[in-house]
Amino acid sequence: MGIKDNLHAFFYPETVAVIGASSSSGKVGNTIMSNMIGAGYRGKLYPVNPKGGEIEGLAVVTEIADLPRGLDLGVISVPRQLVLSSLEALAEIGTKAVIVITAGFKEVGKDGYLLEQDIAALCKKHDIALLGPNCLGMMNTAKGVNASFAAGHPQPGSIAFFSQSGALCVAILDWALGENVGFSKFISLGNKAVLDEADMLEYLNKDEDTKVILGYIENVERGEAFLKQARKACLNKPVIMIKSGTTAAGAKAASSHTGAIAGSDQAYAAAFRQSGIIRVDDVATLFNLAQAFSSQPLPKGPNLAVVTNSGGPGILAADAADRSSLTMAALSQKTIQRLQAFLPSYAAFYNPVDIVGDADAKRYRQALDVVAEDPLVHSIMVLLTPTASVEIEETAKAVIHTARKCGKPVFACFMGKTRVKAARQMLMEAGIPCYAFPESAVHSIETMYEYYLWKNRPDPKYVKITGDRELALKVIRAHERRNEPEIVEFEAQEVLKAYGLPTPQTILARTSDEAVAAAEEIGYPVVLKIASPDISHKTDVGGVKVNLKNATEVMNSFKDITARVQRMRQDAYIAGCLVQEMAPPGVREVIIGFKRDEQFGPMLMFGLGGVYVEIMKDISFKLAPLSRQDAFEIVREIKSYMLLKGLRGEQPVNFEALEEIILTMSQLAIDLPQVWEAEFNPVLVNHEKAIVADVRMTLHLKDEA
Amino acid sequence: MGIKDNLHAFFYPETVAVIGASSSSGKVGNTIMSNMIGAGYRGKLYPVNPKGGEIEGLAVVTEIADLPRGLDLGVISVPRQLVLSSLEALAEIGTKAVIVITAGFKEVGKDGYLLEQDIAALCKKHDIALLGPNCLGMMNTAKGVNASFAAGHPQPGSIAFFSQSGALCVAILDWALGENVGFSKFISLGNKAVLDEADMLEYLNKDEDTKVILGYIENVERGEAFLKQARKACLNKPVIMIKSGTTAAGAKAASSHTGAIAGSDQAYAAAFRQSGIIRVDDVATLFNLAQAFSSQPLPKGPNLAVVTNSGGPGILAADAADRSSLTMAALSQKTIQRLQAFLPSYAAFYNPVDIVGDADAKRYRQALDVVAEDPLVHSIMVLLTPTASVEIEETAKAVIHTARKCGKPVFACFMGKTRVKAARQMLMEAGIPCYAFPESAVHSIETMYEYYLWKNRPDPKYVKITGDRELALKVIRAHERRNEPEIVEFEAQEVLKAYGLPTPQTILARTSDEAVAAAEEIGYPVVLKIASPDISHKTDVGGVKVNLKNATEVMNSFKDITARVQRMRQDAYIAGCLVQEMAPPGVREVIIGFKRDEQFGPMLMFGLGGVYVEIMKDISFKLAPLSRQDAFEIVREIKSYMLLKGLRGEQPVNFEALEEIILTMSQLAIDLPQVWEAEFNPVLVNHEKAIVADVRMTLHLKDEA
Repeated sequence: MGIKDNLHAFFYPETVAVIGASSSSGKVGNTIMSNMIGAGYRGKLYPVNPKGGEIEGLAVVTEIADLPRGLDLGVISVPRQLVLSSLEALAEIGTKAVIVITAGFKEVGKDGYLLEQDIAALCKKHDIALLGPNCLGMMNTAKGVNASFAAGHPQPGSIAFFSQSGALCVAILDWALGENVGFSKFISLGNKAVLDEADMLEYLNKDEDTKVILGYIENVERGEAFLKQARKACLNKPVIMIKSGTTAAGAKAASSHTGAIAGSDQAYAAAFRQSGIIRVDDVATLFNLAQAFSSQPLPKGPNLAVVTNSGGPGILAADAADRSSLTMAALSQKTIQRLQAFLPSYAAFYNPVDIVGDADAKRYRQALDVVAEDPLVHSIMVLLTPTASVEIEETAKAVIHTARKCGKPVFACFMGKTRVKAARQMLMEAGIPCYAFPESAVHSIETMYEYYLWKNRPDPKYVKITGDRELALKVIRAHERRNEPEIVEFEAQEVLKAYGLPTPQTILARTSDEAVAAAEEIGYPVVLKIASPDISHKTDVGGVKVNLKNATEVMNSFKDITARVQRMRQDAYIAGCLVQEMAPPGVREVIIGFKRDEQFGPMLMFGLGGVYVEIMKDISFKLAPLSRQDAFEIVREIKSYMLLKGLRGEQPVNFEALEEIILTMSQLAIDLPQVWEAEFNPVLVNHEKAIVADVRMTLHLKDEA
Repeated sequence: MGIKDNLHAFFYPETVAVIGASSSSGKVGNTIMSNMIGAGYRGKLYPVNPKGGEIEGLAVVTEIADLPRGLDLGVISVPRQLVLSSLEALAEIGTKAVIVITAGFKEVGKDGYLLEQDIAALCKKHDIALLGPNCLGMMNTAKGVNASFAAGHPQPGSIAFFSQSGALCVAILDWALGENVGFSKFISLGNKAVLDEADMLEYLNKDEDTKVILGYIENVERGEAFLKQARKACLNKPVIMIKSGTTAAGAKAASSHTGAIAGSDQAYAAAFRQSGIIRVDDVATLFNLAQAFSSQPLPKGPNLAVVTNSGGPGILAADAADRSSLTMAALSQKTIQRLQAFLPSYAAFYNPVDIVGDADAKRYRQALDVVAEDPLVHSIMVLLTPTASVEIEETAKAVIHTARKCGKPVFACFMGKTRVKAARQMLMEAGIPCYAFPESAVHSIETMYEYYLWKNRPDPKYVKITGDRELALKVIRAHERRNEPEIVEFEAQEVLKAYGLPTPQTILARTSDEAVAAAEEIGYPVVLKIASPDISHKTDVGGVKVNLKNATEVMNSFKDITARVQRMRQDAYIAGCLVQEMAPPGVREVIIGFKRDEQFGPMLMFGLGGVYVEIMKDISFKLAPLSRQDAFEIVREIKSYMLLKGLRGEQPVNFEALEEIILTMSQLAIDLPQVWEAEFNPVLVNHEKAIVADVRMTLHLKDEA
């Protein structure tokens, strides 16, 4: 048995005890009791309070020890100083799951943090599935459970919601009651001492009552577990999340709340994208999407058809579609002919299909049926402007009729608010999302289509690249012994070689004579670079000379470089110069790097060298390990990708060679956890090959940790 | 007297006749009558119908000729073939303004187009202010006028709305009735045969009942008039508009609607930006902003303070602020001390100020008052999560109290929908915008702040650059005579010289000996370029050689170039080669160009040469004439601006020289309407000077028009 085995008891308890139950209205311990009863809970419910008596007609148990052994769920709402002892007593009787509502833990400082650690340790020892502390509670509409102090019960539905903010739970519950949105599970995570978002994703993925998973999180602590569960869940059902504290101001606010330490937003963005989570910025969009996903099938292609009774709104819809990844469907000739057979001559037979202002419900139904049968159409939006002659409710029925039989996603946009109210209600109840204006409808369809593409992409192929890890570790250990965090070029190249990465032919020359000899061996022209463990930015100290064409130039440059560097950096140890082959012509410079994110581990970055990365910030990111598809994508997601593909008749660079280097860096990041950051800069690539021309690595030394 | 003098009679008519009035319910001519009466119109109302009788208790006039002379407003709703004769009869009795509701004109094809031309001509001849045809009508709540066939009357308010789509009028009216949004004027423009958006902007700018102007347009035909009126209006009150048909799909839909021809979206974007119009993409945002602008003062700075009773929503607000151009205010030490004096110790005293879940209305009021008094705070958002202990309506009163006395914009975000409903109603009625989630509130405040900045920027300074226009025209006329649309380098340089633009020293050499002599005069190194009126892309035919260092190189290159070009383009006339001074070192290449937009005239563009313009699409646009401020902005709006400012210790380029060239091109575009497109490419600029190194101009020849 483990904590996860107790999640069923947590969500579907047959026995529930409320520790700190109260008969005084307004007290949390009273609200929980009345919420459990009000939600229609049919299992055994035990109020617990040393004062005894009766609450809501139930006899109060005075001691936790008197509760039945193997209790499914204990809900704790007692003063902070009594939480640990209550938990101990619950553990004693073999309780499977506990919710700690009480606040005053990690979020209030060190004392609370330590107390929370004790609680977590206790639960882990006894396999107790613990929610909280400092949370609103949990609801499961399928079991009549409302173990929370929220105001009101949500309707049953197929949307699950978990949130790191209890306040957001309160707000969303209130909003959902007004909008008639139903939930399967509703979970306030609180401080996440034991159960967290990764556990919820794992459980809700298998939960048959849940079609769509929504989440609000401020941080993730178990990055790897989160990624694993998110990947699995997203292949099965849509996961839509808000990650807040993404910006500097937000993170500052977040760090004084629930004690969250926000990771870098780029890492979160990469984690969400790679696992298939649909990320949104605001609550309104979160629920728009939830309703769309929970009620309509996924569009199997990008082609949207719009049927409208008015021109202007049709244009707005077409504009919105054009701004999205959808396209306005080109209707087939047959469809157009079928439309012409019954629509008035002044209608627009192309897409948007404008059945004009005097359209009645019959005309809507006919047009919708014809459009829906066109195999080139993947999704349909029905636009209705409440003109004088339109039959609003009858048209809603026509929409429902077509939607039920066509098997394609159908969205309604009944413009306005007053006259369309009843029709909108009918549509929503029939599971057809209905919007007041076309733009949000388009956004929902687009997001569903993108999810469809993600879900149906080929399985990612992960390649294991085998390098000589021991050889690489030797270099690293030598640096660790010398307490040198920076591994600079010559020694870093050993690491590259250990992983079979292509490097330019390089020879270390200690004297100018050796440099000339090396150049003769390599063949002119050559590059000379200062070789010093103390200098990582070689160009800044005049430590690089390129395109040296003969022995004299090499001789003079060697003297020049060493003298200048010695003058500028008198404390630097200078081993000599590296003599290196010149880059071939037609080369592009790219940067491939990684840095370790606290939550998600190594994050790879890719971009074109020079101004593209520095000024244009044209960089793409992926978390390791990268699949072949990830490597394919990371080079194509930058805006300057066209420069790699080749301008005006230029040959494209060797993408396979580039992707191989990226995959190798991903492997290196996984094999060598001592390396905190690494950068291949530049990697030179032309149509034939790619070479790692320079490299820097930074170790995470133990005494710095 | 002119049409514009009749706009007062149009909006505030003392006498209104409905031509085609009907007693049959459901007919347009009946709806208009009942709308006029239902809106509480107190002037004289005349139903007109040859059938006679009585409508809504008013005696029907059978002949237009029997109406009183100098009628203020005629509303025509008769079959299409009777519209022109009705208008003639109305003109006969000196009618000042007319609305043609009837459809079937420009939007249905050539016949309709010609009939509409006749109607427009008639109105212009008689100074009749004509709205439509093919429109819903017009409402003026201040005068009790509802001369439309819409369903329902809007409440009075301070928002004016005009729309090119009648359907959007219908939808928005229905929506506004549900949201309790009031209007001053509500205008369906229809086909805009006479009155258009420019006229509306001019009138509504002066209309004292209107605080905010909203518009929906699909196209603008009188670009210059529109810009002029928009500029004026935006200095006085906010103008918020949707321009649809902006995308390929939208424009395709638009062209089959109201017969609109959409101009390039870049020109519209530039027109809106330069005149100060706030452009939005969707209807929901349009009205969010309208409510904010119509009820709250403008923020006088970027600093936003958030007061909240919950952490999560506070983070969402801070995130949204960080994504915007606002900043989270750093509260003064004094403010923090004042907050500490009464807030519980576990509150967050920094911004967002979290007064925590048990906050009552008194704590909200105290905190709001303290925060509002901080001079570093420019705008305030009050966040409320409907927790158990919060006093929702009392807190709304506290917000209203602070908002009334502080003189700063205050926005509420009462999260949820059910429990906050009454409070939201109170806030909206007191003129405090209240949102369900924080993100839209932040967007409204940001937009108001940006409008504040725009309104308070210094007056644009327009400079008249005097060139030798006659000299330039001489070159152009010679090309027109020869029917040559392309003016290529050597002759185009004459035009540059006429306007005093800096060009590289250039000498035309007809032979290789002349080329050497020219190079000696200019000084080595030099550039050689093919000189041929038939070749505009010189590099494509190998027609350019750079960095020629001595007489031999010049001699050989001359022969090379001319031979190669002659071989590649056997029909080309070759005048010889241009010998040109080389660009100085440290030079950046930029492109300055213009093309003429059908609606808005010359549109200037600016960008860095090479991949920046072509691949990264990093281009900025402005409509001519450019002010000094516009020229300043156009070079700074590109992302690659940092390259001009200089990287790592590089000197910045000479921006003044660059801006002078841009202003001169603006003048040239205005002085020489025959030039359809022009491009200075490249313009070479370093820290000392800027030179127009190459130029192409394309004429708009008459026979091409």
